[in-house]
Amino acid sequence: MLKGKSLVNIDDVATDDIFEIFKLASEYKKKVSKGEVLSELNGKIMATLFFEPSTRTRLSFESAMHRLGGSVITVSEAKSSSASKGETIADTIRMASSYSDIVVMRHPMEGAARLASEFSSVPVLNGGDGSGQHPTQTILDLFTIWEKFGRIEGLNVSLVGDLKYGRTVHSLIKALSRFENAINLISPEILQMPEHVLSGIKNQQNIRKISNLEDVLNRSDVFYVTRIQKERFVDMNDYAKVIGSYSFDLATVSRMKESAIIMHPLPRVDEINPEVDSDKRALYFTQASNGVFVRMAIISMILGVR
Amino acid sequence: MLKGKSLVNIDDVATDDIFEIFKLASEYKKKVSKGEVLSELNGKIMATLFFEPSTRTRLSFESAMHRLGGSVITVSEAKSSSASKGETIADTIRMASSYSDIVVMRHPMEGAARLASEFSSVPVLNGGDGSGQHPTQTILDLFTIWEKFGRIEGLNVSLVGDLKYGRTVHSLIKALSRFENAINLISPEILQMPEHVLSGIKNQQNIRKISNLEDVLNRSDVFYVTRIQKERFVDMNDYAKVIGSYSFDLATVSRMKESAIIMHPLPRVDEINPEVDSDKRALYFTQASNGVFVRMAIISMILGVR
Amino acid sequence: MLKGKSLVNIDDVATDDIFEIFKLASEYKKKVSKGEVLSELNGKIMATLFFEPSTRTRLSFESAMHRLGGSVITVSEAKSSSASKGETIADTIRMASSYSDIVVMRHPMEGAARLASEFSSVPVLNGGDGSGQHPTQTILDLFTIWEKFGRIEGLNVSLVGDLKYGRTVHSLIKALSRFENAINLISPEILQMPEHVLSGIKNQQNIRKISNLEDVLNRSDVFYVTRIQKERFVDMNDYAKVIGSYSFDLATVSRMKESAIIMHPLPRVDEINPEVDSDKRALYFTQASNGVFVRMAIISMILGVR
Repeated sequence: MLKGKSLVNIDDVATDDIFEIFKLASEYKKKVSKGEVLSELNGKIMATLFFEPSTRTRLSFESAMHRLGGSVITVSEAKSSSASKGETIADTIRMASSYSDIVVMRHPMEGAARLASEFSSVPVLNGGDGSGQHPTQTILDLFTIWEKFGRIEGLNVSLVGDLKYGRTVHSLIKALSRFENAINLISPEILQMPEHVLSGIKNQQNIRKISNLEDVLNRSDVFYVTRIQKERFVDMNDYAKVIGSYSFDLATVSRMKESAIIMHPLPRVDEINPEVDSDKRALYFTQASNGVFVRMAIISMILGVR
Repeated sequence: MLKGKSLVNIDDVATDDIFEIFKLASEYKKKVSKGEVLSELNGKIMATLFFEPSTRTRLSFESAMHRLGGSVITVSEAKSSSASKGETIADTIRMASSYSDIVVMRHPMEGAARLASEFSSVPVLNGGDGSGQHPTQTILDLFTIWEKFGRIEGLNVSLVGDLKYGRTVHSLIKALSRFENAINLISPEILQMPEHVLSGIKNQQNIRKISNLEDVLNRSDVFYVTRIQKERFVDMNDYAKVIGSYSFDLATVSRMKESAIIMHPLPRVDEINPEVDSDKRALYFTQASNGVFVRMAIISMILGVR
Repeated sequence: MLKGKSLVNIDDVATDDIFEIFKLASEYKKKVSKGEVLSELNGKIMATLFFEPSTRTRLSFESAMHRLGGSVITVSEAKSSSASKGETIADTIRMASSYSDIVVMRHPMEGAARLASEFSSVPVLNGGDGSGQHPTQTILDLFTIWEKFGRIEGLNVSLVGDLKYGRTVHSLIKALSRFENAINLISPEILQMPEHVLSGIKNQQNIRKISNLEDVLNRSDVFYVTRIQKERFVDMNDYAKVIGSYSFDLATVSRMKESAIIMHPLPRVDEINPEVDSDKRALYFTQASNGVFVRMAIISMILGVR
């Protein structure tokens, strides 16, 4: 039951609720693609409160709200607003929540969403809080896998690239580990999955560090690739080497299983060559558009219309 | 009759209209809290044109418009827009008004709203013009008092803090002085109510300068506290002293009447300790949320649907 | 047939479609002025993606979408968004188009809109791409002439001011030259219509360079005046001289035909004296407001509801 609740951390979402979201997201996806006009959130208002810019996340939430017939009020640069007059997060969220029925908040500081949910008079959706959580991203990642394979267990999943700073893979590995999945970690030495993430995971025996992408290329069902940020490297030669060995092109893809899928939270830079885009295994654009349907499901369940 | 008119200055609003607004705001408050979907402004468009940022005011107006079923187009940083190409306020407002049915304008320059209303083809709502007016704020302040006491006369009202730069108290004292109210002015020496404001008020005999908050603490019905801006002080020691004697904590509040209320236009910084928030006399968050209902009433009366 | 198509370049729009747009824009203008509530785009979403600010264009498109009952998601400063993380236009437009039913894009780079239309999954409307095209502006210019004269041929049209950098006049002269119109070019030496624009025009014999505005003042039906940007001039004395001879005041206007019209894409600075505004020949504000109705027509034809 998500009704009336805030969504701060993927760990708080029961497995049953995740599957409930999948079903409803599927239903919405069908309806939207048929051009059906939905009106279940007529009269409802979402406030999107972004203390750091994230156009992709903001637009996806706003699109979801509009698709359901709701309205949106937006602060895309919350930093330059009341906060700059010395207002606390508590007071800012009280304001936003008194003008709306649901608040989406993005904040550079880990824990900000939890704090906000304690002072808000309406449910808060965490749209990413620093190195913390981004639960709707995790659910849309899982949905994309589920939609393709019909399940989110019994799969061989490779997480590739920046596993150290990539917030999405931290949540995803925890969520996938609720089920029986073989998980491969493939990253440059300096960008490995942090111990504090790994130590919180049960079913450790299913997780393996792989030094060479080639070793799992023809075995994995899912390749979840993350953006490797240039600014993490002091030496640009190191960056060039890393990008060389962790990027996907058609040659790489041709050695994968026919049924495999490639995912990426986007934006991508050099990790996936655009020549891959037209391969049927390239699922990252579908994944992004799934975000709208998954968020529609979450919003309508929380607002209690479904 | 507000129909078709601009709202630039609280002094232009007849007392009858103020009570009309109260009644309609009350009605909307009940309807929204019951989750009723209103559609009286379907098809209507509000343009919010903010030449200086004011997230709180903007979101409150936009929320009001959406609650009534209307749409919103927004320029949250009008400074960086056409104005920067040398366009006059007159031409900018002509543009905005030709795209909408009602315009909300915020501008750093006193008199800007009056000017705009002369060139606009649709009604203009003044969302604050420099040290000038912010009439919807005044009406929501009055509404909050009226909702609590059932009247806006025969009350003992203390205005506390920065009475010099605090635009809201300038309008509020004028509005309260239309009726028989005892008004106490309590501020540090350097932040006193300006003479030009006082001289414009009738019923001067009801206004008293009070040097010590303690003197009225157990007698006032309304404490209207304003933000004391650090940047007004050259010497931070002065600021510390002032904040010390003009801030509210639970000890202060415990000496008030049970029926008293504490108001604040928000954002607050150090003037009211968060420990006060849960006291039933703390009405500033209610006051903020009332802004939406009061603005709903004003918009629908001006657009002639009510 | 505009249904399902992108609108990148005015040259791609068939003459029949232009007249179709005129008729529908006229119909919408009547309906909106009567206060009719339209709902043909309920459930549809427009994404406005502005890589450079253009408040006027953005608000006009957004107003059009709202008047039709649709919703809008906005990136008013796309530069500071994903693009800054190194994302290509192709990927950014894929994102925006996966969240919406139609995308309006403004970009400082010529050709950006064409590129975007190739990667978008929904129709793209070019809201201006650098020194390139701004087709909806051209259509609203033509519509304003058509509405006034009942035709867009057999007219004497003077293009006045900055004909070198003024993108709107480049498209307008091409569009007007599809029909038999006498076209006068009146500009300072350094701001003449570029050869590359002229060479692409058929019916060259109908185009004449005029050195003196006075020569056509009592003969032209349409004066299309453009903004002369101070920053184009090295020497401010040159600017002053130019503005002196190319600006319109009441004395200028009094020598025009009674039936003539003055147009301007706005914002204007010193080219047209505000004293002209109340003359019935001043049509630039009507022209601006026509933008909404023309865009309503274009959007609904492209989205296939009309």
